[in-house]
Amino acid sequence: MKTRHTQKLVTVALACMVVFMTTNAQAADPLASWNDGAAKQAIVEFVKATTTQGNPQFVPPEARIATFDQDGTLWVEHPMYTQVVYCLERVPALVKTRPELKNKEPFKTVLSGNREAMARLSQDDLMKILVATLTGMSVDDFNAETKKWIAEAKHPRWQRPYTELTYQPMQEVLQYLRANGFKTYIVTGGGQDFVRVYAEQTYGIPPEQVVGTAGGTKYGYDKDGKPFLTKEPKLLLNDNNTGKPEGIHLMIGRRPYAAFGNSTGDQQMLEYTKAGDGARLAMIVLHDDAEREYAYGPAQELPATKVGTFTQALYDEAKKNGWPVISMKNDWRVIFPFDNK
Amino acid sequence: MKTRHTQKLVTVALACMVVFMTTNAQAADPLASWNDGAAKQAIVEFVKATTTQGNPQFVPPEARIATFDQDGTLWVEHPMYTQVVYCLERVPALVKTRPELKNKEPFKTVLSGNREAMARLSQDDLMKILVATLTGMSVDDFNAETKKWIAEAKHPRWQRPYTELTYQPMQEVLQYLRANGFKTYIVTGGGQDFVRVYAEQTYGIPPEQVVGTAGGTKYGYDKDGKPFLTKEPKLLLNDNNTGKPEGIHLMIGRRPYAAFGNSTGDQQMLEYTKAGDGARLAMIVLHDDAEREYAYGPAQELPATKVGTFTQALYDEAKKNGWPVISMKNDWRVIFPFDNK
Repeated sequence: MKTRHTQKLVTVALACMVVFMTTNAQAADPLASWNDGAAKQAIVEFVKATTTQGNPQFVPPEARIATFDQDGTLWVEHPMYTQVVYCLERVPALVKTRPELKNKEPFKTVLSGNREAMARLSQDDLMKILVATLTGMSVDDFNAETKKWIAEAKHPRWQRPYTELTYQPMQEVLQYLRANGFKTYIVTGGGQDFVRVYAEQTYGIPPEQVVGTAGGTKYGYDKDGKPFLTKEPKLLLNDNNTGKPEGIHLMIGRRPYAAFGNSTGDQQMLEYTKAGDGARLAMIVLHDDAEREYAYGPAQELPATKVGTFTQALYDEAKKNGWPVISMKNDWRVIFPFDNK
Repeated sequence: MKTRHTQKLVTVALACMVVFMTTNAQAADPLASWNDGAAKQAIVEFVKATTTQGNPQFVPPEARIATFDQDGTLWVEHPMYTQVVYCLERVPALVKTRPELKNKEPFKTVLSGNREAMARLSQDDLMKILVATLTGMSVDDFNAETKKWIAEAKHPRWQRPYTELTYQPMQEVLQYLRANGFKTYIVTGGGQDFVRVYAEQTYGIPPEQVVGTAGGTKYGYDKDGKPFLTKEPKLLLNDNNTGKPEGIHLMIGRRPYAAFGNSTGDQQMLEYTKAGDGARLAMIVLHDDAEREYAYGPAQELPATKVGTFTQALYDEAKKNGWPVISMKNDWRVIFPFDNK
């Protein structure tokens, strides 16, 4: 009886194993939106090397950190950074509370709605608009305003919310890395507070894993004695170029094992990642698909001016250092999540 | 046959359940080092309210954030902050590389070894020593030096490494909260980089969950073109008083549901935590056990001067706001992990 009982249990256990293994074998390709090629292979081989026990390049789970630039790497950045659109569209509301700005530049130009004049605004003018629309309010008010805007605003080309214009292949990389024990971070030149508002819902990345350009806040009390934080016009971290590894140290305190970017602003993050021991992955997205998205950067039809400054020099450095370049045109079977539907 | 097979499976399943339930019932009290009382009860009730599905105060797992001051809350801060000891003990090595400091104050006094003279050093003098010993080197060199020191240094009273002088009851709170889905953070006035070196091994808290007083770093390249970060004498975050909620916003981006402190430097973190909706826990450790640890703060025998400025005013505010005060003497059955052995 004992033996028979044991046999039964063994049979059940084996049956379970078969079901489990079959399910796994039939599981969809975690990078199904990628075409086969060097880029996809680099990702799969990196994950295999760093997560296979006994592999000399095995990385313990707690050290598995992967960082992603946002604009142009995880979602569309053309023709204008989403946050800049937000700031420009906030100007009318800002002027209502601060009427003295109405006839002052650069606010006057923004209120005119003249797109050509707005396109000519200098970096200094743009900075004035950013400071005026991103600081001076409470953190709670800012979060509420941003949340409302991001739910309603639409990209001029696709007429869809910006949060739908994420790249499906990169969403798969985020999920694939997380499924393999990596903590995924956004490391963006954009505003940390801005991106945090939608990162969890859009990418599955919680606020504490968003590193971005960050200003100071000031602690105070409202008339009922309730404490709150006000966003101050004081820059703590410019999370671009050398600011990316500096921000990673400040906010994470560990060197990433994998980093993804698309512009010269990501170069130092990629270098810093690759300078670590063992298997490290640094990849760059090349926008070379004018039909399905945009083509800009080295040898592309749009000039690499205001956004996505993927220069020929960065392209050459990537090739020299062996950083795989992701061709949107050739490596991505689909671009957006809605392409699959 | 089918029925008999099914019966067997049910029997096995039931047996498993019984084993599981018995194990659970016999599981040790997660707060075994706490005496029964209001403090222990407050922690247990908070966890029950925030983690029970259907409870109106239920908090989704991703929002469960708990923050802990370190010095005086998680480990001994008397007679001197561990990091200050580190800085003072680094002075001889510093002077070897920068001999011009040898006859300059305050370094001369530190080199003299005269403890009375050292105790009279001003805050400005102390700051000079901190800046000289905590900045100017690469992040990697700093980490290596700190790691070596913390492994060897001993507390003058117990003659044990500082990392053994953590409070066992607070270690249990950390583990209990984590077992219930909370992410535990250190939010310390101490140096972020310093605490990160040992926090994972000492408290199970990874570097990215240590928020502390933080300076800037500067990205550069060594002679072989390899990038590295240098610690700069530029303060980004003074993580004390109002700096604690400001640092929490910068580094975490969410309001904690629970916060633990022991001094006026923690007051704003506790207020900010309690100002959120739903169940929020704010607790203060009172050092009232001269025999097993130290007694300082309101109505205690040691003056609340250089460390642990738990003032009468803070005590009164805690009582007014209903923040449970943890009496080390009455609420803690044991103080240190080695007391149990």
